[in-house]
Amino acid sequence: MADKVERVDRKLVYQGHIFDVYTDYVKVHEDRIAEWDFIKHKGAAAAVAVLDDGRLLMVKQYRNALDRYTIEIPAGARDSEEEPTEICAARELEEETGYRSEHLEFLIRLRTTVAFCDELIDVYVAKDLIPSKQHLDEDESIDLEAFTVEELCEKIYQGEIQDSKTVASILAYKDKYLK
Amino acid sequence: MADKVERVDRKLVYQGHIFDVYTDYVKVHEDRIAEWDFIKHKGAAAAVAVLDDGRLLMVKQYRNALDRYTIEIPAGARDSEEEPTEICAARELEEETGYRSEHLEFLIRLRTTVAFCDELIDVYVAKDLIPSKQHLDEDESIDLEAFTVEELCEKIYQGEIQDSKTVASILAYKDKYLK
Repeated sequence: MADKVERVDRKLVYQGHIFDVYTDYVKVHEDRIAEWDFIKHKGAAAAVAVLDDGRLLMVKQYRNALDRYTIEIPAGARDSEEEPTEICAARELEEETGYRSEHLEFLIRLRTTVAFCDELIDVYVAKDLIPSKQHLDEDESIDLEAFTVEELCEKIYQGEIQDSKTVASILAYKDKYLK
Repeated sequence: MADKVERVDRKLVYQGHIFDVYTDYVKVHEDRIAEWDFIKHKGAAAAVAVLDDGRLLMVKQYRNALDRYTIEIPAGARDSEEEPTEICAARELEEETGYRSEHLEFLIRLRTTVAFCDELIDVYVAKDLIPSKQHLDEDESIDLEAFTVEELCEKIYQGEIQDSKTVASILAYKDKYLK
């Protein structure tokens, strides 16, 4: 393998609704160019929404990719790659849960699937929640439910919560804030 | 929004090297069919590889999608959707680290990016590691390094480790095994 892997070309092969697909041409040996899939995504943000009693506010929604309902932390894509993730997290929190917060603390940055996609999700902890109003996108339908951190950890280990941003964020919140 | 979201069609729009891209036609209102991107992936497995001194064995590799080196737990795709993830985890552990284990314990199942992809990663804890031999794929180049769990948590909160499977798995290992 070459000491330095070098991308020599990137070609758009499919334009999706929420991402674009490219073929990357990568020099992996002196005499070999490999073709690797690459998905370009505009990035996202999410919030660990903490109620005054310590429970976390979760969203339950149908996910077409899994063909079932999931339990996730509130999250959503940025309007553009330029949107600051803190703005996006505040908006998605309010739109999906009907609560807003003037107090977002950065928790972790995640990359969802580094083998083929550049999607990032910045996760914030939202406390001192203020009741506001849910504004869902036209194609969204979301139910809200609050759980204790211990209930959520049980759901993680039992496989009821599998979404990687949700698993990572709940465990990071527990590790950093509750030990 | 319809009470029951219903997929009425799925069309292959691009065949990649490691996944396929589809457009799904989803009935979200009585009178509205939405088009949603869907990526079909054959699934993967990963291992939290625990050395006898408690440090975790991590792989450092170039990731084209991020155009930089990452620190991750050993992982890799299944040969097919039928391959049991425990077999895949054992193989990837040995291929990437040069250690094998006869003692894999299931830790968590992750879905990397539920908004548009069905990729799953089953994560196992591998203890009692036995020196064997690294066998990398033709296009792989991997360096190994061991860190304590506390060092890894610092790297997560400082943003040096962002890969969602790695963040979720280290924190789950810490939460379940070290508290």
